[in-house]
Amino acid sequence: MPEFRQNMVSKEWVIIAPERAKRPDQFIQKKEKGNPLSSHRKDCPFCPGNESMTPPPVFTIERNGSWSLRVVPNKFAALQSHLTTERKHEGRFLKADGFGMAEVIVESPFHSRTIATMDLEEVRNTVLTYRERYLALSEVDRLDLITIFRNYGEKAGTSLEHPHSQIIATPIVPPHVRNSLYQSQLACDTFGDCIYCGMMEEELHQKVRVVKETERFLVLCPFASRSPFEIRIYPKTHHSSFATVSDRELDDLASVLQDTLKRLSIGLNDPDYNYIIRSTPIKDGEVKYHHWYLVIVPKLTTPAGFEIGTGIYINTTPPEQCAEFLRGVQTG
Amino acid sequence: MPEFRQNMVSKEWVIIAPERAKRPDQFIQKKEKGNPLSSHRKDCPFCPGNESMTPPPVFTIERNGSWSLRVVPNKFAALQSHLTTERKHEGRFLKADGFGMAEVIVESPFHSRTIATMDLEEVRNTVLTYRERYLALSEVDRLDLITIFRNYGEKAGTSLEHPHSQIIATPIVPPHVRNSLYQSQLACDTFGDCIYCGMMEEELHQKVRVVKETERFLVLCPFASRSPFEIRIYPKTHHSSFATVSDRELDDLASVLQDTLKRLSIGLNDPDYNYIIRSTPIKDGEVKYHHWYLVIVPKLTTPAGFEIGTGIYINTTPPEQCAEFLRGVQTG
Repeated sequence: MPEFRQNMVSKEWVIIAPERAKRPDQFIQKKEKGNPLSSHRKDCPFCPGNESMTPPPVFTIERNGSWSLRVVPNKFAALQSHLTTERKHEGRFLKADGFGMAEVIVESPFHSRTIATMDLEEVRNTVLTYRERYLALSEVDRLDLITIFRNYGEKAGTSLEHPHSQIIATPIVPPHVRNSLYQSQLACDTFGDCIYCGMMEEELHQKVRVVKETERFLVLCPFASRSPFEIRIYPKTHHSSFATVSDRELDDLASVLQDTLKRLSIGLNDPDYNYIIRSTPIKDGEVKYHHWYLVIVPKLTTPAGFEIGTGIYINTTPPEQCAEFLRGVQTG
Repeated sequence: MPEFRQNMVSKEWVIIAPERAKRPDQFIQKKEKGNPLSSHRKDCPFCPGNESMTPPPVFTIERNGSWSLRVVPNKFAALQSHLTTERKHEGRFLKADGFGMAEVIVESPFHSRTIATMDLEEVRNTVLTYRERYLALSEVDRLDLITIFRNYGEKAGTSLEHPHSQIIATPIVPPHVRNSLYQSQLACDTFGDCIYCGMMEEELHQKVRVVKETERFLVLCPFASRSPFEIRIYPKTHHSSFATVSDRELDDLASVLQDTLKRLSIGLNDPDYNYIIRSTPIKDGEVKYHHWYLVIVPKLTTPAGFEIGTGIYINTTPPEQCAEFLRGVQTG
């Protein structure tokens, strides 16, 4: 029987439709392994030796005298740092110059690695750099929201194979973000506590959607997953801003992020995915009603007209089944 | 220079980023024409002779003793009509049975046709049927929102080639729809008129985003287009519910819809697309603050982590360029 499920924060609905059911293992990607990527490519702007193909780095981590991670301004940035934030009217329309900052984190010198196959130290450097750049961009005047994300594979919107993440900082907090913050604020005003903390308590009680629990993090397939194998990684300690993440949490996050992406990669034969860190807007900082988290969205299905029209996603595979499948993947 | 543009109804922002520019003609699809589709396929559930592969029709249009259009309940419906709408708590989570109705409109007996290549009469039958089924489903108790949409091609989420549209009627108006209605209501409370009527006036004044104007419809690429070649078709007379569309409007809509999709198909070599009719919820009916329209979203780009995280779409091709390109396509 199909059912509607409500996302308790955004209040958007999904339809879990097992009548059209796909079992989790039907999402195993059919792509051939083919030749593994070479670990170095002459024409890759992110490979060692090609540093002149990118703008100079704003942050670097070195190991044995050469870089092991670089952060560079995005050469093809959608936003630029020399513009104004002034709103302008064009007749009845409203616009503003595209002020903002866009950076690329080159996570490893090795072209062929991914988060799932890197040294754990490289993953740790990556999440450490997320915090480093989050803090640095938080100091930039006129920026309001910092979005850290990773696009992996063509279906996830990237054509560059070399392992990298991105950061885009905008002078605008869009309704898409504000609406969820408003709802979680309303819930907090009503019930007195963080809706995410309450949700985690419930998930630990019900257990069926939990993929993994560590000392500091909880990994789960959310109740109202919009698509198969949506995964969220929540810190167990309440903090709303990613700026507050501690060294110990970063250590644990590196392990748990790698473990989760390994499960996805081994279980479904290396699917494309996006992940995003959702933090409060910079100036909101630490608040009682939001809880930062990382969301992973594998690109396994195609939203169609109904989803575009209503925002209601039809998901053919219950998150309980996806969590069970992911728990069963052997990563070692 | 990149710029932010605000959707005046949803208040969401887009980034028009010409630094990453793609010219309109770079979106011409590379797919080979190959063998044209045959006009009949033995294994297609929508081809004549295979009527037993679908549930019995709820509406039919005949011509010369055989059907030229059929509406059938969706055999793989995401929602079902025998369920309840009662909300249920599962711990802290909220859910409801998947009550609703889902229908498929088989628009032509010919497997190989599309809206762009059909007889105009078939397109007219299709939009006439949209109204017919809209009115019929409006009478069904407990339904609140009727969404009419068409998924064309694999990238748009359909695997069935045979020309068809879909209707899904839900007992829920989701926030995605409510938020825009609330904003247009607020604008109407503030300025006293329909924000869409005002926008059309402005577009006719600026002219740069207009693709075509007919007696009863205006076709344009919206100011804050989220992706290249987004197109909207607005009736010039103010009505908020698709239920009110007149016979004359339907005649004109058939021509203008076919003309628009021809421009897209000829200009960009038959790209995949979704289109959706956005009407008020059933019980809201005719109101001053909403204006029904049809939106066409060609599947030419891939939303990535930034879009998922912020709802801010990066669009590399200004709608002014897309409108100019579409105006220049020879359809005759």
